Amino acid sequence: MLHIEFLTDLGARVTVDVGSADKLLEVQRQYGRLGWTSGSVPTGGYQFPLDNEADFDWSLIGARRWTNPDGEEMILHRGHAYRRRELEAVDNRKMKLPPAVKFSRGAKATDPEHIREKADGDFEYVTLAIFRGGKRQDRYALSTASTKRSEADRAA
Amino acid sequence: MLHIEFLTDLGARVTVDVGSADKLLEVQRQYGRLGWTSGSVPTGGYQFPLDNEADFDWSLIGARRWTNPDGEEMILHRGHAYRRRELEAVDNRKMKLPPAVKFSRGAKATDPEHIREKADGDFEYVTLAIFRGGKRQDRYALSTASTKRSEADRAA
Amino acid sequence: MLHIEFLTDLGARVTVDVGSADKLLEVQRQYGRLGWTSGSVPTGGYQFPLDNEADFDWSLIGARRWTNPDGEEMILHRGHAYRRRELEAVDNRKMKLPPAVKFSRGAKATDPEHIREKADGDFEYVTLAIFRGGKRQDRYALSTASTKRSEADRAA
Amino acid sequence: MLHIEFLTDLGARVTVDVGSADKLLEVQRQYGRLGWTSGSVPTGGYQFPLDNEADFDWSLIGARRWTNPDGEEMILHRGHAYRRRELEAVDNRKMKLPPAVKFSRGAKATDPEHIREKADGDFEYVTLAIFRGGKRQDRYALSTASTKRSEADRAA
Amino acid sequence: MLHIEFLTDLGARVTVDVGSADKLLEVQRQYGRLGWTSGSVPTGGYQFPLDNEADFDWSLIGARRWTNPDGEEMILHRGHAYRRRELEAVDNRKMKLPPAVKFSRGAKATDPEHIREKADGDFEYVTLAIFRGGKRQDRYALSTASTKRSEADRAA
Repeated sequence: MLHIEFLTDLGARVTVDVGSADKLLEVQRQYGRLGWTSGSVPTGGYQFPLDNEADFDWSLIGARRWTNPDGEEMILHRGHAYRRRELEAVDNRKMKLPPAVKFSRGAKATDPEHIREKADGDFEYVTLAIFRGGKRQDRYALSTASTKRSEADRAA
Repeated sequence: MLHIEFLTDLGARVTVDVGSADKLLEVQRQYGRLGWTSGSVPTGGYQFPLDNEADFDWSLIGARRWTNPDGEEMILHRGHAYRRRELEAVDNRKMKLPPAVKFSRGAKATDPEHIREKADGDFEYVTLAIFRGGKRQDRYALSTASTKRSEADRAA
Repeated sequence: MLHIEFLTDLGARVTVDVGSADKLLEVQRQYGRLGWTSGSVPTGGYQFPLDNEADFDWSLIGARRWTNPDGEEMILHRGHAYRRRELEAVDNRKMKLPPAVKFSRGAKATDPEHIREKADGDFEYVTLAIFRGGKRQDRYALSTASTKRSEADRAA
Repeated sequence: MLHIEFLTDLGARVTVDVGSADKLLEVQRQYGRLGWTSGSVPTGGYQFPLDNEADFDWSLIGARRWTNPDGEEMILHRGHAYRRRELEAVDNRKMKLPPAVKFSRGAKATDPEHIREKADGDFEYVTLAIFRGGKRQDRYALSTASTKRSEADRAA
Repeated sequence: MLHIEFLTDLGARVTVDVGSADKLLEVQRQYGRLGWTSGSVPTGGYQFPLDNEADFDWSLIGARRWTNPDGEEMILHRGHAYRRRELEAVDNRKMKLPPAVKFSRGAKATDPEHIREKADGDFEYVTLAIFRGGKRQDRYALSTASTKRSEADRAA
């Protein structure tokens, strides 16, 4: 038996029992759809493979797609809206980085120091997730296949 | 089975077992009426839809309505009294915000830095909850049904 | 079923299962008598009604009465000794406070910043509990009555 | 049923179920012998009665006696070696303290601020435990009986 | 019964039940292979005996060997890559240290202060593990037996 700790959409600390390790992602999706999150965003943001970006299942981390009043697609996570940004590959003497997609927002006065990252000038931002390099992991996808598979599991 | 962690009115850390996810809000109401809280107030305060303000069930977050010695209606949460303030809509070049109702108090010497928000001059305040925009959620309401049930409980 | 988290007198983190919510204070008393505490002292100290001070059951918060070598009555809590102080009512333009009884000690070099309160001059102190206003709660009392009641509960 | 939280010798967070409260110290000894600790060292160090120093069972706090390459007897706790120091009684206008035995080490660059104590000059140290005053508690002793019992366990 | 707390590769907080203490390392290996970690890296890094370095089973701490694009062998732990460095023995008036192997990386802007160590100039680094002195512990080794068993598991 496993037990996963969530912070509910109402901010309550709730643990959910899970029958076995292979049911874990399914439980994360189920409660993530309600806006529940487990653990905190890693410093610098979640890191996922770039090839997972197009069909990433945001419910895995308690987030969801959201269209803002200006018609812009954003990601909503614990009450904050994050904007999608494409980062070009970096290849100079100091570092070499493949292209990436980053979801970030401007820092707010109440954000703790350790999650703020410096940008140009005085601007500071907070990153939710960065998709860069790596090898696609199907288990992160919002796929019909995974939905069907989990239905088959339930029927079995 | 779920397990919800509370800080009791006496400050003790107590976990309560909950049979299923759909019983969770009921358990939060039951212990919230005793002043028990789960998790901490999110930075910047809890965010709820404006249409939930009139009949919000404060027991959901371990708070309750309280009339102070001057006859003013306030919200009591973990020993602090919060005052109701109406915020007008903001619509200028920098930002656009719908009207809101905010429950806040002046900061105290022992409040940690990250929950203090700056106001005019040297004044700092702490927000418990802000009701703004969004879509009303009936599950947050102080429903007659649940009120009747709890009265029946007490009478029994 | 409930589960209460303690810090034992030896500083170990131990959770104790409790059959039902109405047995909780009894369990807190039982382990509190051994010096076990649950949760941390709220910033500014525990707040209790003034009318609970005379017969307060200090075991509820893992503390106990102690007479120091000078014959003075003090309260011992997690290795620190707190002195009883009576505070007169305050009634001026800035604030209005009823009389209170406070249990506090001088701050030590290893005390974290957020629990220190400023007094006159450079003196800093730490508060364990303040008894002020409110309505007496019998369940906090070290009374024969409450002992009898809980015995009756067990017999039922 | 009780549950005690440990940090294993490998730094993992592991909870162990304990049948009843009177088995707790036995379980702390059993896992403490492996270097597992529960909770953190209290600020200023653990406080024990002076009369417990000679035969103190260091496994109770996950520590053990260790002879360093120079032949000096030290106490090893979570990878740090602490040296034994005898403190004379203090009796002056400012304070009055009985004699004590203290186990401490020099502070390291990675030690957090709140556990460092100032000594003469720029020297800072960290205290594991201080044995002073109080009344001997037999349950803290490295008793022959308990040693024999654990040997019997291993033989079984 | 024991219960071990992990941070999964996705950053979720999950506890896993373990039948008995002797199964614990096996469970740490099993989930560590997925990148799950338990507890945080001790300040200054994990300390292991030097004789364990050659065949250390990095899955015990949720890490794994990784060859970077330049063909260099590194250790990957929670998204950070650590480089292997050999430290010569130190033997001077101030200190005496046996030779060691250290796995460390340059500090990043988002690393908290307490895990950064100063090196020459302004350079700061973070240590994952240091292998120095001590006596080899076979239980830390990447044993052929355990490897074979896990291959059999996968084949089944």
